[in-house]
Amino acid sequence: MSDARPHVVILGGGFGGLAAARELAKAPVRITLIDRRNHHVFQPLLYQVGTAGLSAPSIAAPLRRILRKQTNVTVLMDEARGVDTAAKQVRLPQGSLDYDFLIVATGATHAYFGHDQWAQLAPGLKTLDDAFVIRRRILLAFEHAEREDDPAKRQAWLNFVIVGAGATGVELAGALAEIARHTLPREFRRSDPRKANVLLVEAGPRVLAGFDEALSAKARTQLERLGVQVRTGMAVSAIDEHGVSLGNERIEARTVLWAAGVAASPLGATLGAPTDRAGRVQVTPDLSLPGHPEIFVIGDLATVTQPHGKPVPGVAPAAKQMGRHAGRCVRARIAGQAGDIPFRYRDAGSLATIGRMAAVAQFGKLKVSGLLAWWIWLVAHVYFLIGFRNRLVVLVDWAWAYWTYERSARIVTGHDGEPKSPGT
Amino acid sequence: MSDARPHVVILGGGFGGLAAARELAKAPVRITLIDRRNHHVFQPLLYQVGTAGLSAPSIAAPLRRILRKQTNVTVLMDEARGVDTAAKQVRLPQGSLDYDFLIVATGATHAYFGHDQWAQLAPGLKTLDDAFVIRRRILLAFEHAEREDDPAKRQAWLNFVIVGAGATGVELAGALAEIARHTLPREFRRSDPRKANVLLVEAGPRVLAGFDEALSAKARTQLERLGVQVRTGMAVSAIDEHGVSLGNERIEARTVLWAAGVAASPLGATLGAPTDRAGRVQVTPDLSLPGHPEIFVIGDLATVTQPHGKPVPGVAPAAKQMGRHAGRCVRARIAGQAGDIPFRYRDAGSLATIGRMAAVAQFGKLKVSGLLAWWIWLVAHVYFLIGFRNRLVVLVDWAWAYWTYERSARIVTGHDGEPKSPGT
Repeated sequence: MSDARPHVVILGGGFGGLAAARELAKAPVRITLIDRRNHHVFQPLLYQVGTAGLSAPSIAAPLRRILRKQTNVTVLMDEARGVDTAAKQVRLPQGSLDYDFLIVATGATHAYFGHDQWAQLAPGLKTLDDAFVIRRRILLAFEHAEREDDPAKRQAWLNFVIVGAGATGVELAGALAEIARHTLPREFRRSDPRKANVLLVEAGPRVLAGFDEALSAKARTQLERLGVQVRTGMAVSAIDEHGVSLGNERIEARTVLWAAGVAASPLGATLGAPTDRAGRVQVTPDLSLPGHPEIFVIGDLATVTQPHGKPVPGVAPAAKQMGRHAGRCVRARIAGQAGDIPFRYRDAGSLATIGRMAAVAQFGKLKVSGLLAWWIWLVAHVYFLIGFRNRLVVLVDWAWAYWTYERSARIVTGHDGEPKSPGT
Repeated sequence: MSDARPHVVILGGGFGGLAAARELAKAPVRITLIDRRNHHVFQPLLYQVGTAGLSAPSIAAPLRRILRKQTNVTVLMDEARGVDTAAKQVRLPQGSLDYDFLIVATGATHAYFGHDQWAQLAPGLKTLDDAFVIRRRILLAFEHAEREDDPAKRQAWLNFVIVGAGATGVELAGALAEIARHTLPREFRRSDPRKANVLLVEAGPRVLAGFDEALSAKARTQLERLGVQVRTGMAVSAIDEHGVSLGNERIEARTVLWAAGVAASPLGATLGAPTDRAGRVQVTPDLSLPGHPEIFVIGDLATVTQPHGKPVPGVAPAAKQMGRHAGRCVRARIAGQAGDIPFRYRDAGSLATIGRMAAVAQFGKLKVSGLLAWWIWLVAHVYFLIGFRNRLVVLVDWAWAYWTYERSARIVTGHDGEPKSPGT
């Protein structure tokens, strides 16, 4: 069908891409949103799926459903392979798609700092499939320990190493310690899940480096109270099937989880603009690609420096703000204005949860930790969850978990490791 | 550790195995329950996971959690490879396990009547992993239709064939018709999900052959009212990637689901007793293996003929009754009694749901269909779901779905078809 409206193509249905689409709801454009998955994931709660606290549908919703009332959007489940900026075309596996404006929001994946072989050994957490792999590894480790008769081998199954003490690493460590100490103990007859060791390793000097130093220290204390061992200033030098090396020290651990590095989506490199070490695209102050005012790069794929010199952090609120900004710039350009409004990041505060009634929160100069921070975290996360049904189910799950220490999604499905045929 | 109590090994944590374990809760025995999965599945609602109505954790619970208060049970996640009835040992991948009493309850899987190559083309529904495959195929078919420009190819993605009109086939067909007609239409811009054809093919003369003829006819009418095309007396003669053949007729359909045949678990063949055509073990009237009063075979793995000549049906209530019976026989034998009490199946009635407010129910001479049968189905299924939390979440999901036609678990994860490495 022929349509005179400018065509806006959005690559990626994460927080940035969705915010851009919504900003253009009433604009005289037609939008095609392309994602290789059929769903949007509420990433801040992904660790809860990985640690069996929530089911996948509780934190994810089909992109079509989210956008069904916005009739100027067509959602396509497909994967962009690259961008031809001269021809203004997105390359798809079958054919290509012309655009007038392009918003690239394909995010980031794990980075193993040149040790790609670690990917299989130490899975990271970016997608629902990643969360299932982590859930399976954690739950199966306790099953292996129950089957194992040799005490040293059993303990190796009960030793967990988490690499990287940013928000994801801290959340995984706290949840894992709770599972071992509160959820599982009465269910095993031969092994004792309370003998699990959870070791959180961080190369930098402190946990939650994005927070104020005093809150980092509080978070560390709260982690240690949950039974997590924290080692800062320590880099992992080797990972194999049986454990990790920290400098000269060898730690036997059958389960290693990766929460250390991020690398931008490879699509960024196809745009022809300079990128930083992590592959993030260096954009102009209005988030457009240098020399291409019709292309915007937003979210974790972009690197933007604020006027005071600090980079915009790779968090959900920043991606949403960048998405809205790109949408506004597109509207301005269609209206014949220059539209090169510089992006300004408004820091809405930072939150990280550690465990039951333990969290840290920072809003400008206001710093909160412990129970109050945990309540703020809870309300904020339930509030921002997409879709009423999800919020209600998540609240039921959490209330139930709170009273019983039970985790509702302790179901092992699928398989990982070497490729196997389905059904084995 | 040494323990003078007789050792009862139960293979399989389905309805039969769990009922046997519970029947022995207060008996002077130690029990090892072995299952290759970590969870019990409430099979009657598996089709809801396959059709995106419920999340997996809503219908499954860890076996350890279910049995955690029964301290005479050790749960092992492992897979029995065979039984040495002379040595009284179960063969495991690593080593073997001695038993005094053995209860085999490993159930059934799909049967493709000699066409094993159909397994990849037309997935069946027995496990949660099967349900994910079916969910993925159904949801991706509509995504393919949206991407496809050629009208004939698009329609092939919107044609669905379900082979077998027993309870599972009828439930899948009804749910699929509802998804196409009510859940998806407003979400697609290029293709129209209402153009989906759902074809239910049955080789026998009527749908729901286990029910009274009048109810079969009512079920057929209710299916047709939902838009399902029903073809009875028709066998599928070929299946390939692009469709099926029914006799001389060719039907283009990219999605084919299998609900036709069951084959007993291969473990039955290792017991050395006669089996029927489907591989089910022919047991004595007290459910023990001929010549082995210490071995019981129950559930879908056993074939038992009732005094009036009809076989016990392969349904959850029958498996539960057989499990309790085997447990009682073990108790009697330990107490020095012969314990060869014949099993008597008490028919608690049959229920099958077809769709929104459409179901059939049969309790002896009482036959109900339509709205009342649907309410009975709803109450019975929520009541028998394991665990309070599941019931509540399922009720929330269903109430929400009822008002909105939304299905809460429309999340595509993983991949199927040819083996691929994880993460691709």
